[in-house]
Amino acid sequence: MMRTHPAGTLRAEHTGQSVTLAGWVARRRDHGGVIFIDLRDGSGAAQVVFREGEMAQRAHRLRSEFVVQVTGQVARRPAGNENAELATGEIEVLATELTVLSESAPLPFPIDEHTEAGEEVRLRYRYLDLRRPAAAAALRLRSEANRIARAVLHERDFVEVETPTLTRSTPEGARDFLVPARLRPGSWYALPQSPQLFKQLLMVAGAERYYQIARCYRDEDFRADRQPEFTQLDIEMSFVDQDDVIELGEAVIAALWSQLAGFEIPLPIPRMTYAEAMARYGTDKPDLRFGLELTELTDYFADTGFRVFQAPYVGAVVMPGGADQPRRQFDAWQEWARQRGARGLAYVTISAGGELGGPVAKNLTEAERDGLAKAVGASPGDAIFFAAGHPADARALLGAARVEIARRVGLIDEDAWAFVWVIDAPMFERVRDEKGDDLGWTAVHHPFTAPNEEWIDRFEQAPDQALAHAYDIVANGHEIGGGSIRIHRRDVQQRVFELLGMDETEQREKFGFLLEAFQYGPPPHGGIAFGWDRICMLLTGADSLRDVIAFPKTGGGFDPLTSAPAPITAEQRREAGVDARPAQPADSPAVPTLG
Amino acid sequence: MMRTHPAGTLRAEHTGQSVTLAGWVARRRDHGGVIFIDLRDGSGAAQVVFREGEMAQRAHRLRSEFVVQVTGQVARRPAGNENAELATGEIEVLATELTVLSESAPLPFPIDEHTEAGEEVRLRYRYLDLRRPAAAAALRLRSEANRIARAVLHERDFVEVETPTLTRSTPEGARDFLVPARLRPGSWYALPQSPQLFKQLLMVAGAERYYQIARCYRDEDFRADRQPEFTQLDIEMSFVDQDDVIELGEAVIAALWSQLAGFEIPLPIPRMTYAEAMARYGTDKPDLRFGLELTELTDYFADTGFRVFQAPYVGAVVMPGGADQPRRQFDAWQEWARQRGARGLAYVTISAGGELGGPVAKNLTEAERDGLAKAVGASPGDAIFFAAGHPADARALLGAARVEIARRVGLIDEDAWAFVWVIDAPMFERVRDEKGDDLGWTAVHHPFTAPNEEWIDRFEQAPDQALAHAYDIVANGHEIGGGSIRIHRRDVQQRVFELLGMDETEQREKFGFLLEAFQYGPPPHGGIAFGWDRICMLLTGADSLRDVIAFPKTGGGFDPLTSAPAPITAEQRREAGVDARPAQPADSPAVPTLG
Repeated sequence: MMRTHPAGTLRAEHTGQSVTLAGWVARRRDHGGVIFIDLRDGSGAAQVVFREGEMAQRAHRLRSEFVVQVTGQVARRPAGNENAELATGEIEVLATELTVLSESAPLPFPIDEHTEAGEEVRLRYRYLDLRRPAAAAALRLRSEANRIARAVLHERDFVEVETPTLTRSTPEGARDFLVPARLRPGSWYALPQSPQLFKQLLMVAGAERYYQIARCYRDEDFRADRQPEFTQLDIEMSFVDQDDVIELGEAVIAALWSQLAGFEIPLPIPRMTYAEAMARYGTDKPDLRFGLELTELTDYFADTGFRVFQAPYVGAVVMPGGADQPRRQFDAWQEWARQRGARGLAYVTISAGGELGGPVAKNLTEAERDGLAKAVGASPGDAIFFAAGHPADARALLGAARVEIARRVGLIDEDAWAFVWVIDAPMFERVRDEKGDDLGWTAVHHPFTAPNEEWIDRFEQAPDQALAHAYDIVANGHEIGGGSIRIHRRDVQQRVFELLGMDETEQREKFGFLLEAFQYGPPPHGGIAFGWDRICMLLTGADSLRDVIAFPKTGGGFDPLTSAPAPITAEQRREAGVDARPAQPADSPAVPTLG
Repeated sequence: MMRTHPAGTLRAEHTGQSVTLAGWVARRRDHGGVIFIDLRDGSGAAQVVFREGEMAQRAHRLRSEFVVQVTGQVARRPAGNENAELATGEIEVLATELTVLSESAPLPFPIDEHTEAGEEVRLRYRYLDLRRPAAAAALRLRSEANRIARAVLHERDFVEVETPTLTRSTPEGARDFLVPARLRPGSWYALPQSPQLFKQLLMVAGAERYYQIARCYRDEDFRADRQPEFTQLDIEMSFVDQDDVIELGEAVIAALWSQLAGFEIPLPIPRMTYAEAMARYGTDKPDLRFGLELTELTDYFADTGFRVFQAPYVGAVVMPGGADQPRRQFDAWQEWARQRGARGLAYVTISAGGELGGPVAKNLTEAERDGLAKAVGASPGDAIFFAAGHPADARALLGAARVEIARRVGLIDEDAWAFVWVIDAPMFERVRDEKGDDLGWTAVHHPFTAPNEEWIDRFEQAPDQALAHAYDIVANGHEIGGGSIRIHRRDVQQRVFELLGMDETEQREKFGFLLEAFQYGPPPHGGIAFGWDRICMLLTGADSLRDVIAFPKTGGGFDPLTSAPAPITAEQRREAGVDARPAQPADSPAVPTLG
């Protein structure tokens, strides 16, 4: 090693020792011929002093981010010069030797936690951005998260298995990334959206307890905070029921938060049904750090003459102290609602004297007005926001308004943690086209999720009511993991595929190998996957997934550092067999039959 | 959990307890109305007895690989019926309840360590193949190998970092797998051949100690034992020299062999220069479990009249006791050599009386004959094989003959482990076309490997002699890892690229981001990558990499289980943007300039 000590570990007890440090020049100051640098390495920083004379002369050319090796004596700083904010603040190193290991050109932006540099330029020079201690700490935390989760899983006899990433296209709701297979021209691999089918096959194989920190790929239209490749902690277990998987999931999450956030999650984590979450919070990812529950007013307005409230669902959420917002603020709420696809956000204000105001109030009967504050739990000075329409849409709007209100009113304790399991999700939901025409059913989780005992033999009778054996874990309003007990009966799996509109040919082509595997003694099994990027984001307190990914991509899937993706050469294209026609089916290996 | 105990953990001390087991019917025997099954789960197997009457009747329909849940009492087996070969052989479970969790169709091949089923069918039904205890144990060992290596690395303050797998094509000697980027039509990602450039950028970023168990991709013409995706334990360190990386590598390897093979590797592992390995063993991957070193005879035959030996290099290897091979065996050696691209394999036999025989002997002078046995260390009864020609080709042939001889003569102790570091490899070697014309230079390791101190300022003067700061670790003749101190000076990196025939434009297009990063204080750094599949293969004693991969592909990159790769639909092709022309360069983000 080119150093004897990591710079950040030097203390007063090292006084008098000769040490060699190696790292970056974080700061250089010239005090009347004496040169001071902060020498930074992975462990922290220490002050190095180049006294007047030859050493100072040689140190004179040092600039920010030069890489240096320094030998010198550890000395106590002169009284009054200690820096209590620095772990090494009691000492300094009096340099006797200096080697410049490499130089640095002037930086495109300073290495500074409070940099004003935009994200695009920071990502282009990500290797400089990562020199910020906070950025480096995020990567280190992620490494620790891996270690902690694995320790829990190894302790419980889980086996880590790598599953293939050059695999078959298995539609799971998003587009697959495709890879041309040069050696089978005209054929393509797909990158997996998750290891779902392979982990289920591992259960059929008798692996019983599997995990993997797995790279997954989804070719989606990028939203701001979506990455084309992402990571999940993927877990599957045999001979378990929902409580077993939930208990295991809680052990993983509790260990992470205990060791990385210093927070002991009270166990067991509470559970809430999907229906309850939608009714009370308007979302399946409720943020339980604050109250502000929705109130359903459908019955309250059952006989209303107000056209807007003559709807299958009417609900409300209260904004504490919201009555005194200026009119333009209420206009901004309308705009906020329209950006979410709603027509607007009806509201009523309650004055200090209890008078109702706002444009809706005058449409209400006296009886409706009199009971309203009590019905929704509002007080003088509050505002009440309403949504009416299809229950799903109206609740979603109120749920979003609830979070927005909490932010604006300051109801969210940023140091609090609130976890909840959302269980008993529906199996299916209708797919409609833009005109609202029914296109059939889609799986709310994925098509391998088992219906619960009550529905397993009759989900076709009322697909919209059938409940799944699924469970999602939510932290502060973020879904951080989700899973289900899986279908392991071939007949049930086929019935689900049929309900989803897949005929036997399509079933065989897409999932023939799974249905075939279920012929040979599949064990009951279930699992969970944790969104690892999101969990690390929450644990570091970062605002963006990109902060916990070493080399993230921008919104369009572009890497400003390497300029990937990039055009390929004609030769690469030819070699890869991109333009080959697939061989005749007769030439292809047989697809497993459903026998 | 659907069980109270793993079946394989039951012992005599459980006698009298009521237990519930869940697992597979491994074997079923019907003894006069009493039915016995071996119930197998991940922990092992236990015998379950269904006594005459209702339980036996219900158990009657059980067949191999049915999945069952059984409740019963643990009882000692009747005296004389114990099975000492089974960990649970003292007990049996007297069933009182039976639930069939799933059934199994008749198997395509029996679940049996000694199955005769071919590999293609076993891979197609990999989920059955993996039910063999040895196959399951291989996956478990691999999981343990991960755990052990990570423990060593965490102990030494390494940070695990995930690097991107949708990245830029960075040619490293093999073809890249390509992925069309739907959101940037006409542009493609490449899957990484290794995390090489990203780990170097992490060092520039100040990460100092990085590791990752990384998936890598090479689109090669498949040899029998090559997988298109493979795994390496990837490590990089800053402020280190070669000894530091080697010491770390030895710590990882020693921990693996100690804990998984029960073998304490004597440390430090010996080092041998590349030149010495080639001279003594004819390979840079010498198997040191046996001697049989090559003898160079170039000087010995300097003045020979035998045309074949008038060559820039003549060498020999001795086959102990090889003189009495029948003539057709020597003919087979000729054929063996021709299959390796040689013209043949000259040989001389030494009779019990010390007489030289074979077709070569008569071409030698008496003096040449008299001194030969001594020169090569042969004894009466041995055979001597010769190769003459270009040193590299002739040594390669002798090196291969050496291993083949050792196999045939039984010189290889299959329980022995012999490790060696091969250091001081050459930086460059000539590329020649099929006619032997010089096409320039290629990097023996990769173009990011540093020349050693002696050559760093003048490797252009004698590229064929310049030595690299590289080190490979070899176990029993398998290269299990390799690495190097990297170039961190931009000028040196540019000189290497130039020697490799890359002009400035090409350098900028392919590696502009790396050269740019080296402008901003890159630390000296180096690293190593271990071939994880191969290491696990050696540790399990398997014959094939496929045995330590959960879902391997066959030689042509085909997965018999899922039938991947497969044709894609016209819609997938259109959506993926496969046929889009790339946008004009002006529309592309700027490639970093070399400034």
